[in-house]
Amino acid sequence: MKPFELFRQKHEFFVDMTCEGCSGAVTRVLNKLGGVQFEIDLPNKKVFIESDKDTDVLLETLKKTGKAANYIGPK
Amino acid sequence: MKPFELFRQKHEFFVDMTCEGCSGAVTRVLNKLGGVQFEIDLPNKKVFIESDKDTDVLLETLKKTGKAANYIGPK
Repeated sequence: MKPFELFRQKHEFFVDMTCEGCSGAVTRVLNKLGGVQFEIDLPNKKVFIESDKDTDVLLETLKKTGKAANYIGPK
Repeated sequence: MKPFELFRQKHEFFVDMTCEGCSGAVTRVLNKLGGVQFEIDLPNKKVFIESDKDTDVLLETLKKTGKAANYIGPK
């Protein structure tokens, strides 16, 4: 059991990634932010993030990459 | 003649770009920064930036993309 993860919300984002360089860049900005667990679905241009951070903070972090990004909703 | 551009230095950077999504991301972060003119050589992973801004500022901006980036030198 991981009590500190019970309240974490999982969020789905669109990020316009087209190659493994793109998904690698997203991986690095999210790891730099910290406090997140995530999965990247490159073919479908989706990023699933589990975090207690605001979705605005997560979206701004994704947009730092220079890629088009949108919040889709809770997952 | 463009007198305000006479003192601008042109700088060469390596940025690990592998697709047009990558070079598009670099284009967007540099346009967002402003005060720069630049060319991107995607096959050779080079970005040439003409600007009065510090190279540290330019490099940090390039690194925001989450891509590996290094300053090569004046061009």
